[in-house]
Amino acid sequence: MALDQVLAKIDADLPAAMDRLMELLRIQSISTDPAFKEDCAKAADWLVADLNAIGIPAEKRETPGHAMVVGHVGEAGADVPHVLFYGHYDVQPVDPLELWNSAPFDPQIEDTPHGQVIRGRGASDDKGQLMTFVEACRAWKAVNGSLPCRITFFFEGEEESGSPSLVPFMEAHKDELKADIALICDTSMVSRGVPSIASQLRGMLKDEFTITGPRIDLHSGSYGGPGLNPLREISRIISTFHDDQGRIAVEGFYDGVHEVPEDQLRQWQNCGFDEEEYLGSVGYTQPHGEAGYSTLEQQWARPTLEVNGLWGGYQGAGTKTVIPSEAHCKITCRLVGDMDPDALRKNFRAHVEAQLSTDAKVTWNQDLDGSAASVMDITRPEFTAARAALSDEWEREAVFCGMGGSIPIAGFFKSILGMESMLIGFANDDDAIHSPNEKYDVKSFHKGIRSWARVLEALTAR
Amino acid sequence: MALDQVLAKIDADLPAAMDRLMELLRIQSISTDPAFKEDCAKAADWLVADLNAIGIPAEKRETPGHAMVVGHVGEAGADVPHVLFYGHYDVQPVDPLELWNSAPFDPQIEDTPHGQVIRGRGASDDKGQLMTFVEACRAWKAVNGSLPCRITFFFEGEEESGSPSLVPFMEAHKDELKADIALICDTSMVSRGVPSIASQLRGMLKDEFTITGPRIDLHSGSYGGPGLNPLREISRIISTFHDDQGRIAVEGFYDGVHEVPEDQLRQWQNCGFDEEEYLGSVGYTQPHGEAGYSTLEQQWARPTLEVNGLWGGYQGAGTKTVIPSEAHCKITCRLVGDMDPDALRKNFRAHVEAQLSTDAKVTWNQDLDGSAASVMDITRPEFTAARAALSDEWEREAVFCGMGGSIPIAGFFKSILGMESMLIGFANDDDAIHSPNEKYDVKSFHKGIRSWARVLEALTAR
Repeated sequence: MALDQVLAKIDADLPAAMDRLMELLRIQSISTDPAFKEDCAKAADWLVADLNAIGIPAEKRETPGHAMVVGHVGEAGADVPHVLFYGHYDVQPVDPLELWNSAPFDPQIEDTPHGQVIRGRGASDDKGQLMTFVEACRAWKAVNGSLPCRITFFFEGEEESGSPSLVPFMEAHKDELKADIALICDTSMVSRGVPSIASQLRGMLKDEFTITGPRIDLHSGSYGGPGLNPLREISRIISTFHDDQGRIAVEGFYDGVHEVPEDQLRQWQNCGFDEEEYLGSVGYTQPHGEAGYSTLEQQWARPTLEVNGLWGGYQGAGTKTVIPSEAHCKITCRLVGDMDPDALRKNFRAHVEAQLSTDAKVTWNQDLDGSAASVMDITRPEFTAARAALSDEWEREAVFCGMGGSIPIAGFFKSILGMESMLIGFANDDDAIHSPNEKYDVKSFHKGIRSWARVLEALTAR
Repeated sequence: MALDQVLAKIDADLPAAMDRLMELLRIQSISTDPAFKEDCAKAADWLVADLNAIGIPAEKRETPGHAMVVGHVGEAGADVPHVLFYGHYDVQPVDPLELWNSAPFDPQIEDTPHGQVIRGRGASDDKGQLMTFVEACRAWKAVNGSLPCRITFFFEGEEESGSPSLVPFMEAHKDELKADIALICDTSMVSRGVPSIASQLRGMLKDEFTITGPRIDLHSGSYGGPGLNPLREISRIISTFHDDQGRIAVEGFYDGVHEVPEDQLRQWQNCGFDEEEYLGSVGYTQPHGEAGYSTLEQQWARPTLEVNGLWGGYQGAGTKTVIPSEAHCKITCRLVGDMDPDALRKNFRAHVEAQLSTDAKVTWNQDLDGSAASVMDITRPEFTAARAALSDEWEREAVFCGMGGSIPIAGFFKSILGMESMLIGFANDDDAIHSPNEKYDVKSFHKGIRSWARVLEALTAR
């Protein structure tokens, strides 16, 4: 059978695949730092050359920022599925450099208690993950002479610097990029060895407000007592955001929030997530979110209203007896289900305004945006097929997991291209992405490649 | 009668007195800026020379910082009162310079709707006020050949830069400086034309704490929900400091606080304080302190717990989805009556600690001090005498007022020299001390000199 041959080819070719990944990892494609602009171009060129070497037509497409890499195989109109695969070739900066045990762009194979790892910047985020799909295609092509379905390859080089060129590029190339479904390999497994497909991503609402009390900074010798203090005011207002059960007390906040279905909850309960380790590693002895919900529910399926910045008055050494004129607060909300960011912003602002004391004023930052949650339609046959394929490879039932973060690309695929995304990733929580000593398990790389071969086969066989 | 002659001499000598003040105002004695060290010495020299010119033995006394000026007239053991007069010859910096309408050290006489003023840095704080006493002595000496009582002159040059040399100098010269009572001219009248003697100064407790939640900064995509957020935690804790009536909810906070006696309250009610103007000038439509207390009571006779600084998380442009590890708060309390700063600190810290959620920790800045309130014994005959003298001069009954601020020198006179202070000042609230375009009313200067002549006479006549 073709799949078995492909898997055997993958196994045999693993050392060469690792060499290729190491080559890509040596390119210092830090997108946020203009000093590495040439390196980013080099990474894009490398990918174009590698796709071409497999026999996949691809090219570098310039943008005002770093280039996209776009490739296509398969004909329009053919009676096979059409998938788009997305990844990014840019990486995070490496500082603090002194915390790395080896040079970040001189990747090393290391033995660890969890097996061999590839150590280096971008190993997990996202070059290693991106290459799992490319290597699966290479093996498939080598064994069968062609790929099993129509595939669009879409790699960007600005994911770690806010993707400024992404939406304009997608808007300008809708017809070229639209496929039946997007495959994204940029996420983790819920726990080591448990294959995971994201079924929901939280959205985000950003807001920021300033509370003004007195017209000017006051001396607390004169106005301490009769003076309204915006620092006390903002603290009081923030303290009304949640009730004593951790539930958000903003009216209408939970409109569009749905309870997690029983069968999905059961999957989550059995997904191998180690709550104690997850909380304990950062110094918590218990979850602190809404009472009555598990840690995973709080993180994946419940909305949040989080204060990310708070400041006002004197922050230097010693004391300044000031009643400041202003106090500032930055918040983000994580959205789930059908929560509407625009309605939520209105409700949130109304809540703050309703709390204001006489003589206190609030002003709002008008430049912050919001995005709804992504809830995948996991009843689609692609999800069923992929789940079975992953379960076969990892010999453990794949989980439809949530994700606490907000991955904008999935929202853009939906809103701009009308395309669902299936996020399958093989990273582990200990990969130290964005941190010194980033690594990717060789097992993730190897079984990731095998997983994609199985998924491609399963998608095509449907 | 001698007093009448002295007052007449003061009136006749006013133009010359103003010239002398202008001379002193031209010296750029900014104590906090090392660039003006020579100027500070020059101001001290000027004062020594001026006291000597009157016939008062005085000298510049070096310290590790700016010099003290100390002078003495009268013999120890003589059967006359002994007063110490305190003032400071240093001034605040002048920036922002562009907001001054004339050069800060080129003093001008200007006409204003409230009469003539002397415009320039230090005119009100404190050179003009200091010179009211010196000019009164000059006139008295000129008319009578000697002063009516024993007087120690004590001028410092570091009041605007934290008085680092003051306590060591006082400790080292206790016997020399100790008098029956200290006279301090560095305060305002409660309202224009209403002579005022401070009968109570609030003390101060300083504290600062840090709330730690997670061990490290967290990403709100991962830990938003189950994560304890120290910014929310600190806001909630701060919101427990006061109840909804503006009363401080820290247990034991009001130990040692006394209600203002009826007769004093009546004085305050009739002291001409314009509450609407006072609050309205900074943007308030009402007082915001403890319900049931007037603005003046809130400011002079009630304790406070004020947040002066609050910060944590991200303060830059845009958004950072962080749950920070730490949040910080600086507070000061104003103390009244017999409140004990040490007990208060214990109670305050116990309150914060009792509010902590599981997994939240608090750490305290151990370097911040506290000082008790100063409550003057206004039954002493000097207060009665001075009140009558001031009432005569201003043709309006003098008020025993409170002061919202904390004037450390009064506390030092009490604690180091066992000496009560009587604070009599002629500044007005619109003098713009510490601000551009500082001024001193010519009326304050003129009637201030006359007031001191009357006070000296009244103190001696007792």
